[in-house]
Amino acid sequence: MIRKLAAEFLGTFWLVFGGCGSAVLAAAFPDVGIGLLGVSLAFGLTVLTMAYAVGGISGGHFNPAVSVGLTVAGKFPASALVPYVITQVAGAIVAALVLYFIATGKPGFELGGFASNGYGEHSPGGYSVTSAFLIEVVMTFMFVFIILGSTHGRVPVGFAPIAIGLTLTLIHLVSIPVTNTSVNPARSTGVALIVGDWAIAQLWLFWLAPIVGGALGALAWKAVGEDD
Amino acid sequence: MIRKLAAEFLGTFWLVFGGCGSAVLAAAFPDVGIGLLGVSLAFGLTVLTMAYAVGGISGGHFNPAVSVGLTVAGKFPASALVPYVITQVAGAIVAALVLYFIATGKPGFELGGFASNGYGEHSPGGYSVTSAFLIEVVMTFMFVFIILGSTHGRVPVGFAPIAIGLTLTLIHLVSIPVTNTSVNPARSTGVALIVGDWAIAQLWLFWLAPIVGGALGALAWKAVGEDD
Amino acid sequence: MIRKLAAEFLGTFWLVFGGCGSAVLAAAFPDVGIGLLGVSLAFGLTVLTMAYAVGGISGGHFNPAVSVGLTVAGKFPASALVPYVITQVAGAIVAALVLYFIATGKPGFELGGFASNGYGEHSPGGYSVTSAFLIEVVMTFMFVFIILGSTHGRVPVGFAPIAIGLTLTLIHLVSIPVTNTSVNPARSTGVALIVGDWAIAQLWLFWLAPIVGGALGALAWKAVGEDD
Amino acid sequence: MIRKLAAEFLGTFWLVFGGCGSAVLAAAFPDVGIGLLGVSLAFGLTVLTMAYAVGGISGGHFNPAVSVGLTVAGKFPASALVPYVITQVAGAIVAALVLYFIATGKPGFELGGFASNGYGEHSPGGYSVTSAFLIEVVMTFMFVFIILGSTHGRVPVGFAPIAIGLTLTLIHLVSIPVTNTSVNPARSTGVALIVGDWAIAQLWLFWLAPIVGGALGALAWKAVGEDD
Repeated sequence: MIRKLAAEFLGTFWLVFGGCGSAVLAAAFPDVGIGLLGVSLAFGLTVLTMAYAVGGISGGHFNPAVSVGLTVAGKFPASALVPYVITQVAGAIVAALVLYFIATGKPGFELGGFASNGYGEHSPGGYSVTSAFLIEVVMTFMFVFIILGSTHGRVPVGFAPIAIGLTLTLIHLVSIPVTNTSVNPARSTGVALIVGDWAIAQLWLFWLAPIVGGALGALAWKAVGEDD
Repeated sequence: MIRKLAAEFLGTFWLVFGGCGSAVLAAAFPDVGIGLLGVSLAFGLTVLTMAYAVGGISGGHFNPAVSVGLTVAGKFPASALVPYVITQVAGAIVAALVLYFIATGKPGFELGGFASNGYGEHSPGGYSVTSAFLIEVVMTFMFVFIILGSTHGRVPVGFAPIAIGLTLTLIHLVSIPVTNTSVNPARSTGVALIVGDWAIAQLWLFWLAPIVGGALGALAWKAVGEDD
Repeated sequence: MIRKLAAEFLGTFWLVFGGCGSAVLAAAFPDVGIGLLGVSLAFGLTVLTMAYAVGGISGGHFNPAVSVGLTVAGKFPASALVPYVITQVAGAIVAALVLYFIATGKPGFELGGFASNGYGEHSPGGYSVTSAFLIEVVMTFMFVFIILGSTHGRVPVGFAPIAIGLTLTLIHLVSIPVTNTSVNPARSTGVALIVGDWAIAQLWLFWLAPIVGGALGALAWKAVGEDD
Repeated sequence: MIRKLAAEFLGTFWLVFGGCGSAVLAAAFPDVGIGLLGVSLAFGLTVLTMAYAVGGISGGHFNPAVSVGLTVAGKFPASALVPYVITQVAGAIVAALVLYFIATGKPGFELGGFASNGYGEHSPGGYSVTSAFLIEVVMTFMFVFIILGSTHGRVPVGFAPIAIGLTLTLIHLVSIPVTNTSVNPARSTGVALIVGDWAIAQLWLFWLAPIVGGALGALAWKAVGEDD
């Protein structure tokens, strides 16, 4: 179990350090910045790469909503859920701290949103709490559905990290303007603790909506995908 | 059959929600928008990801022109064509509605083209109806040809979703300026019903050209690829 | 043989229609154009996708310099070289014609370079004929070397189209500013015939340099990669 | 051994020619330049493509920090370390020279940073030496960790070049603004010799930090991943 938790710690660290790091350090770099497309790619590649590296050890969740979804689907023991989630949040917090330390090593650094998730006036595009909640539910629903589908025995082995990582890229391509894209409560928590204030006040949505979406996605998969 | 239809519904939902969603929400986001490149990637990834997740259940068409092409090629039973097409259109319509609901949760939302396909004055680049028809035929021809080729027994299993999804990305990289890229009558119908007016008046082309192209692509494959 | 030639015709058609098409129609689209990054991706995806679809039929060359390289490496019969090259050029010419017909369906269309390759004053970045020749030799050298390496029996089956297609993307990411990137005499010839004039006058370089580079890459592979 | 060294030479040549070449020639091309996103993709694709082509010959390191990491992990004989590192540096130097020769074939060429790595006033974003050191350690740590994880017997064969190449893309998406991204002492050395001056004065960091990071990543993998 300790090796599984170490894998989840490093995987969630990588997700936040790579994904949020690309947003904080490189998205708006003058003239040649990577933009939302680059950030979307970065988030997806954190999962694709670490799913290959440690998927065979811990399952490669890196995300409390995924762990909940897999539990609902009967693919993950409920007894391991709490240690996994705590470890994922810890990995995200450490990543946010390391990223913060690096980012402040620049004259004139301004914290800004620090890649935090938000709605209403803290949505990148000013979207309402209703839009934010709905898109996080839909996106996590599809994320967990595709995770379950692409890791099913029916699919040739080895391709799941590609399908899952690129699903996360796709999710970001659509939803960064609405919520800055969470679908992952640990990712939201890590950077929200750096920003404090509004980011913590809005954090409830980025726990509730992804977990609801992930659980519903798991139920949908059980209905559509399991009955062979 | 009900599980197959559920898979097609969700797959076409994802194609429209992810592909058109990226166009509506993120393509022109100020300064860091994902542009046509990001939209092209998004459309392709909807198919890549759901083809892994449910390709083994329904075949992963998500597109009436593909279902017609596979029928012409003798790879799909004609008796299933009508239920598949109806389900695909239903998935596209639900996706467009959910996307519309989310998109309107922003002060000052303007509907615009809402990612609808068009020609003439409704072509993104002002291309004529002839150019629009021709490019939709050519692109769907190649799409169905590559689908049949990459799912042939001659190709190692597991790679087809990559080839097919990235073909859709490529198609968008070329043809968004001409028609906003359809190659998929269901995708066109979903968003056209939101826009109404000209989008519905021009919808005939985005049924006719993709189906003609898909059928011709299937015939070409039978001539070039099947005779082992 | 006729089926092999049909596959090469369609593959080279796709390379020129998709790659040059993205450059002509979408690269510089106002505000949201795909840029050189999108064009690089498009060229690579034409090869990735059609190599999956018809690689098992014709070998998936789509490029006279590749056919020459494979012949030098002893992987392709010299007797088939001339029919392959003629067919590839024919596919490129037809693609350029279809693209031209579509592109002119826009009011105010200007031909411009029409994605032709060039050096000196016709290099996108104004690079000299020496720089142009050298980069085309180096890039085709590496292209053929990687084709031979990734299709060797030592590599697990199925991955070669990914490696080869993404090599072409990488080549474009580097060298579009120098020559608009050829590494493929057929691709250069197709669009040069539309532009005429300087594009035809400079066409010699885009036959000579890729074929020299491809032959040298094949020899390098034989020295480095074959002696198991 | 000579064939292994030839493979490492060509692989590191390709990494520097493709990666630094995209930065020097194409990143800031007017209006349609590939930006940091394109450069990130290019670096990753150099490794992805050559790992397929010659990974089965030399292991496909192309990077002294990777060779050190694999030695620490017990996956590479210490006796081969020095020849590998010398060859990698030689490949990088030749690539930088060829790139320099091509790049100067343009009227008004200015050397600039020539894709060299730097910190402080030579960091693209003005980041301190501490931030630079830390991010290079973290990134090379994760790079070597993922290399070891994705090449482990637990992972289906054939996918490692995708995981490893895209890890390098991800690393660049995050860290170009901080150090221009090294994680590879050979890559840093090749272009630094062209620039001289400050690039050589700062070169120590891009040997020390990647090697420290790579060694730590190997130790982490041994603790987390090996104990089956």
